[in-house]
Amino acid sequence: MNHKREDLKYMEKAFELAEQGLFTTGENPRVGCVLVKDDTIIGEGFHLRPGEAHAEVHAINEAGEQARGSTAYVTLEPCCHHGKTPPCSQALIAAGVARVVVANTDPNALVGGQGLQQLKDAGIDVTTGVLAELGADLNAGFFKRMREKLPLVRCKLAQSLDGRTAMASGESYWITGEAARRDVQYWRARSGAIITGVETVIQDDCRLTVRPEALPEKDHNKPQFFSEQQPLRVIIDSQLRTPLNATILQQQPVLLVCAQASEEQKSAFREIGCDVKPMPGLNQRVDLATVLHYLAEQGINEVLVEAGATLAGAFVEAKLVDELVIYTAPVLMGSSGRPLLDFHIDKMADRLHIHTISMQAFGQDWRLRASLK
Amino acid sequence: MNHKREDLKYMEKAFELAEQGLFTTGENPRVGCVLVKDDTIIGEGFHLRPGEAHAEVHAINEAGEQARGSTAYVTLEPCCHHGKTPPCSQALIAAGVARVVVANTDPNALVGGQGLQQLKDAGIDVTTGVLAELGADLNAGFFKRMREKLPLVRCKLAQSLDGRTAMASGESYWITGEAARRDVQYWRARSGAIITGVETVIQDDCRLTVRPEALPEKDHNKPQFFSEQQPLRVIIDSQLRTPLNATILQQQPVLLVCAQASEEQKSAFREIGCDVKPMPGLNQRVDLATVLHYLAEQGINEVLVEAGATLAGAFVEAKLVDELVIYTAPVLMGSSGRPLLDFHIDKMADRLHIHTISMQAFGQDWRLRASLK
Repeated sequence: MNHKREDLKYMEKAFELAEQGLFTTGENPRVGCVLVKDDTIIGEGFHLRPGEAHAEVHAINEAGEQARGSTAYVTLEPCCHHGKTPPCSQALIAAGVARVVVANTDPNALVGGQGLQQLKDAGIDVTTGVLAELGADLNAGFFKRMREKLPLVRCKLAQSLDGRTAMASGESYWITGEAARRDVQYWRARSGAIITGVETVIQDDCRLTVRPEALPEKDHNKPQFFSEQQPLRVIIDSQLRTPLNATILQQQPVLLVCAQASEEQKSAFREIGCDVKPMPGLNQRVDLATVLHYLAEQGINEVLVEAGATLAGAFVEAKLVDELVIYTAPVLMGSSGRPLLDFHIDKMADRLHIHTISMQAFGQDWRLRASLK
Repeated sequence: MNHKREDLKYMEKAFELAEQGLFTTGENPRVGCVLVKDDTIIGEGFHLRPGEAHAEVHAINEAGEQARGSTAYVTLEPCCHHGKTPPCSQALIAAGVARVVVANTDPNALVGGQGLQQLKDAGIDVTTGVLAELGADLNAGFFKRMREKLPLVRCKLAQSLDGRTAMASGESYWITGEAARRDVQYWRARSGAIITGVETVIQDDCRLTVRPEALPEKDHNKPQFFSEQQPLRVIIDSQLRTPLNATILQQQPVLLVCAQASEEQKSAFREIGCDVKPMPGLNQRVDLATVLHYLAEQGINEVLVEAGATLAGAFVEAKLVDELVIYTAPVLMGSSGRPLLDFHIDKMADRLHIHTISMQAFGQDWRLRASLK
């Protein structure tokens, strides 16, 4: 569909606002809104945190009386139900908005087109689908959770040019450079949960926290707001072998997922503030699909897997990964090094095809973003 | 050094001309020349084939009487010795050229600054170093052969995103797409020799020929001229196991390099037109450095290694590779697949660092060019 140039212009602005909530909207979608009258922006807003006002309310409040007769550009269909805040569809009607332009309809069963219907019933002109692809990208995790009851899963990996992540001995520190490591902070910050494996916790004594000061240099595209809470760090640990003094446990929230463990083992972790859940699968291992369904139930839209070749390979092999974020360092580590992903394919015909989203230089390293589905 | 804008402009034009000889100058460097008078090009030339006229002579002939008082832009220091053609320094003096601008001085011991000296002695104004970096790239093989008595060695590889070149079974056909395979033709066409291993000959029954019709779409940057002779195909074959009916042997020239072989074995190959040379090294294997020195003696400036992980890994491990050309296909082949390069490193500190020259998309694949030294 061809949309009007001014519709595209103002919707783009609404998405710039929506992106300000990239690191903070939690279980909610990222939404931006601008109110326009006589080709002038009279109100702006975005959703920042769960429980706080929606984008439309901020914009209406800023516009005040001028809102009457204006056009509202909202990146996502306005909500029509009483959640933690009153419905935005009613707020737009009450404000006297004449036209509403929307990028994506809401896949949330509680909204699902009814928000738009309420607007139409009130005589408001409604246009949908403007820059819908931007919204599909920005809220891919939220949309997937609504539709499939699963979060969007990104798998972050760092390898040498010859596809190795560590030496045979396990030695692996600092494969990529600082720019790539800073970029990882961006992916962590937008994720509701970070999944790793007990082996990585033991080998690297990793934190897997977001450190806002370590994020790439601020520019107008990057959100300025951070969540006060760390993403949920999830340790896949079939036999609960995580050391109680592991650094990752020092900052909550942490969830340990095991296959089988004694009450005594579980209590030890619960006493230091961790959540412990058994989710057994085959062969006394954790069932990864169950973990993801559970995270979706907790309102987690985006998950980042930062694990070794075994766990990352298991996620890929189980076809649970939506997107790969692979940093390749300009080094050769030799054929005895550890593989990128530990999973097995016998025939060329069974190889997994990926679709490049982008290839970008980060210092001396390269970052490939690719979708697996 | 800051060079005049018009010097840069005309030298760039001279390099465009020089590139026309990319596939055909053989043992000679690629050289282009423009003669300029009153900011107008009055003569152009490039060297096309060994034994044929040099770039300067073509340009002087085209300019005729106008050459008197003009400026000559030559990508490489004019020759000053009687080789297969008369010396160009004398031709420029005789034509009455007033100024000569040069990119690179000639590392050829027979020229080595004397060409420029002759011009200066004749009262001609000489400027050097203009766009020298373009010449260093275009004639990297020639320069290396002159200085080190070794050809420039490029190693072409194709891998999956997880660094695999074949399944465990050896199955490997068509990892990359058509655009990448066409690009390989470009690297073959500019190489004087293509080195492969007997295993690749047996497994793939490869031709390793240049097929001009398979080259990428012609554009103004690509030479229109091809050599009538195929590059020398070199098979590293310690025990002379190449099948006599292998497709690669059907088109000469082919050189088989062995470690040890009976006269009878050698005769069989010689009878069908192949050259056979023993160049034994350690452990009854071929000595790769000896092969490269031999190729340099034969006037080969650029070598392309198109081999499996074992031979390519041996070249890398012996530090004989100048440049990697690696095509990465957007597929995952799993951790039991064959490695990119079969060589061993124990410690991270010993990993090989490479320097990215370029990263470019070819269809769905990515091509990384990187230097290893």
